[in-house]
Amino acid sequence: MAKKADIGLVGLAVMGENLILNMESKGFTVACYNRTVEKVRNFVEGRAKGKNIIGCESIEALTASLKRPRRVMLMVKAGQPVDDFIAQVLPYLAKGDIVIDGGNSHYPDTIRRTRDLAEKGILYIGTGVSGGEEGALRGPAIMPGGNPKAWPHVKEIFQAIAAKVRGGQPCCDWVGSDGAGHFVKMTHNGIEYGDMQLICEAYQLMAQGLKMSPAEMHQVFAEWDQGELKSYLIEITRDILAKTDEETGKPMVDVILDTAGQKGTGKWTSQAGLDLGVGIPQIAEAVFARCLSAIKEERVAASKEIKGPRKTFKGNRKTFIKNLQQAVYASKICSYAQGFQLMRAASQEYKWELNFGEIAMMWREGCIIRARFLSKIKQAYDRNPEMANLLLDPYFNKTVAAAQTAWRKVVISAFEMGVPIPAMGTALTYYDSYRSKRLPANLLQAQRDYFGAHTYERVDKPRGQYFHTNWTGRGGTTSASTYVV
Amino acid sequence: MAKKADIGLVGLAVMGENLILNMESKGFTVACYNRTVEKVRNFVEGRAKGKNIIGCESIEALTASLKRPRRVMLMVKAGQPVDDFIAQVLPYLAKGDIVIDGGNSHYPDTIRRTRDLAEKGILYIGTGVSGGEEGALRGPAIMPGGNPKAWPHVKEIFQAIAAKVRGGQPCCDWVGSDGAGHFVKMTHNGIEYGDMQLICEAYQLMAQGLKMSPAEMHQVFAEWDQGELKSYLIEITRDILAKTDEETGKPMVDVILDTAGQKGTGKWTSQAGLDLGVGIPQIAEAVFARCLSAIKEERVAASKEIKGPRKTFKGNRKTFIKNLQQAVYASKICSYAQGFQLMRAASQEYKWELNFGEIAMMWREGCIIRARFLSKIKQAYDRNPEMANLLLDPYFNKTVAAAQTAWRKVVISAFEMGVPIPAMGTALTYYDSYRSKRLPANLLQAQRDYFGAHTYERVDKPRGQYFHTNWTGRGGTTSASTYVV
Repeated sequence: MAKKADIGLVGLAVMGENLILNMESKGFTVACYNRTVEKVRNFVEGRAKGKNIIGCESIEALTASLKRPRRVMLMVKAGQPVDDFIAQVLPYLAKGDIVIDGGNSHYPDTIRRTRDLAEKGILYIGTGVSGGEEGALRGPAIMPGGNPKAWPHVKEIFQAIAAKVRGGQPCCDWVGSDGAGHFVKMTHNGIEYGDMQLICEAYQLMAQGLKMSPAEMHQVFAEWDQGELKSYLIEITRDILAKTDEETGKPMVDVILDTAGQKGTGKWTSQAGLDLGVGIPQIAEAVFARCLSAIKEERVAASKEIKGPRKTFKGNRKTFIKNLQQAVYASKICSYAQGFQLMRAASQEYKWELNFGEIAMMWREGCIIRARFLSKIKQAYDRNPEMANLLLDPYFNKTVAAAQTAWRKVVISAFEMGVPIPAMGTALTYYDSYRSKRLPANLLQAQRDYFGAHTYERVDKPRGQYFHTNWTGRGGTTSASTYVV
Repeated sequence: MAKKADIGLVGLAVMGENLILNMESKGFTVACYNRTVEKVRNFVEGRAKGKNIIGCESIEALTASLKRPRRVMLMVKAGQPVDDFIAQVLPYLAKGDIVIDGGNSHYPDTIRRTRDLAEKGILYIGTGVSGGEEGALRGPAIMPGGNPKAWPHVKEIFQAIAAKVRGGQPCCDWVGSDGAGHFVKMTHNGIEYGDMQLICEAYQLMAQGLKMSPAEMHQVFAEWDQGELKSYLIEITRDILAKTDEETGKPMVDVILDTAGQKGTGKWTSQAGLDLGVGIPQIAEAVFARCLSAIKEERVAASKEIKGPRKTFKGNRKTFIKNLQQAVYASKICSYAQGFQLMRAASQEYKWELNFGEIAMMWREGCIIRARFLSKIKQAYDRNPEMANLLLDPYFNKTVAAAQTAWRKVVISAFEMGVPIPAMGTALTYYDSYRSKRLPANLLQAQRDYFGAHTYERVDKPRGQYFHTNWTGRGGTTSASTYVV
């Protein structure tokens, strides 16, 4: 082998292949390996033919082909396979070599692996890579975290292949130590769940509520992609709605089954919210909406038994669609407000010192949620890096306030017509909760103290003083320390 | 020590003390131990004085005081303390002895402990105990699971101290193997989160929307407690609203701070729903509502910056309150439908063979969610033990259909007035989703296939056949196997 490779990549599924081609196109020589060796041959004789790409039929050959310090990037299924490949590659590495996990690994795993490999002298990176297959090829958003000592060794390659915002800034920068990169990517995906669900609800309201055709909805999304909502997901929705099924001649969306899976990063994001005690109902609702989509047969059976309201849409369609655009935008702002609150809590918990403005810019291009709107988030954090919630930023506050009446109208129409809007509804509820000086948790605390002696705080006493009322006259003075509801 | 004890109990917080007194009142002799030995002395010389209760100052003394096979019940904090006490008690146990964990342990821990102790010849039970301090004393609901061989040894004691439904049936029966008892108790608590949140929302709508006083709301809950909603939580809410603060003379609810904690079973229930892929948004929303209540200072600050709608309540208050009762009841039905769907999925996953009608009857009395309504659930499962969803049962279907118009009106009023109703809103959304023959997940699948080659199924092809469209004309034929959104 004449020339040594700059980086070696393990795992030749679509993301791996495309990342390799992207790296090679930027002048790097890339070695590659796949467990099913046939894939290596197919790739080298196919898409990689004539390029500076070295096919390897073993981990040993892969590591032998690399410049020092070695850089090995794994693009394999999250979970046990990552640990397995790390174990396989370790015997061929020397101190100071770098292992990179580019899959959607769960951040606690990345925290553990960063620590374990540091003890062996290996520099570990867990990085989010977003952009789907096309992003991987043309420039994804890359969110690396892990061992900070590894960053100087991969910065050049990563920033070369990453998407660029106008002005040339790469959508890739160091996110933070250990699990920070994968946490931020996970949150990106949770937000992506929310964005997709919002678009689906807008589509459902137009399709079922207004009885619009895919061609008509295509027009609406084309318009929306010219304004505040301009984003990759709106753009592809526009294109999807214009697509015709070759087999039947029907609109493509009409022949696709309405069942979506969920088991990855959206679930983890929701669970992280629950673990960190951060209110992110909108992401959780988007995940649960997928769960409900999955029980198609049950729904079909239920639709025959359970009747909805008779009310159909009356009113001006043009006005409704204008209001709908406002409702989607306001809901989207609430979703991002929740996602950034989650990252803020995680940053405090894990001492990651996340830079929220930079994260918004990493998501500005390349990734699935890329959108014009993310520049507004960057500007908001520039104005106030310590901002508690996006909704408090002057631009977003004003925007949502202006959208509020339209937003409420759309939500109300949906409930009148019986069209389910889990994300849009919970977004408005979040907005109304967050701006509530007083929520009814005082009654809840009274209940908990009544049945479980859990104590409460008082409005007229400093925080941290706990009181117990003997509500029934029968309860003892023993307070609860075991029973926690 | 003259007389040997029937059972030994470790942990003298309020639940432990009251369970002991309950057992003793049923004719059992109970030994007790607490890590802080002073608590043992206080108890024995206080509430336990003159009763068949043996205070022990060491684990060794506790186990020595027990009849064979020994029964040791732990009422200690869930988590590591349970493992610690098991380790402490093990050296003093013989094969066939029984260890019972009566705390709110996480069901995966109970699965593990049942297995580990079975290997040592010890019969383990993880049991839910619900009813708060008063229930523990007067008759809680008890939900035991674990090693089935242990059940005959504790059945007599447990069923003696448990609450009884009319006719004398105890609210305690064998739930299932390993973690079944704690899973069912966890779900009970998740449902309890939902019930409490619903009541809080009704209170908030009356207090903020209709500007009603606690005394007026007391009347409403007193009426509700005569009808379909009759339940322990409605009853204590009625009493709480009538309670005056001795210090200020104000209504008690008005001096209690509106911040509630969450970190236990409600969170686990939501996470279990996410893990099992079961849509239980209502429980998750109740947990997130507590998270939002907790950030009081942020909310107070936000309330000054972010403005809600100007709309105030107009209309007939009596009609609104009647509608509200319907809305609460319909929402409650949706919440239980979700909880039972969760248990159904868990029963299949873990092969527990849960008996849902019996579970409803175990919750009929004694526990925090005890309610007349649970007899209706029992009847529904008697009619059809294989029922997919409570909403499909004729009684519940008819009831929700009849409540539907009132329910929608209340939800719409809340959104108009800007009063947050996370549980009631998501309940109606769940209802509208579950009865939807077609949800918009077809568009979502198109998006996923567009950006990630994730494939989709078709409405005109059998399930299990997956298709991929090259949407852009640029994508390759390599399908995704790594990148899962």
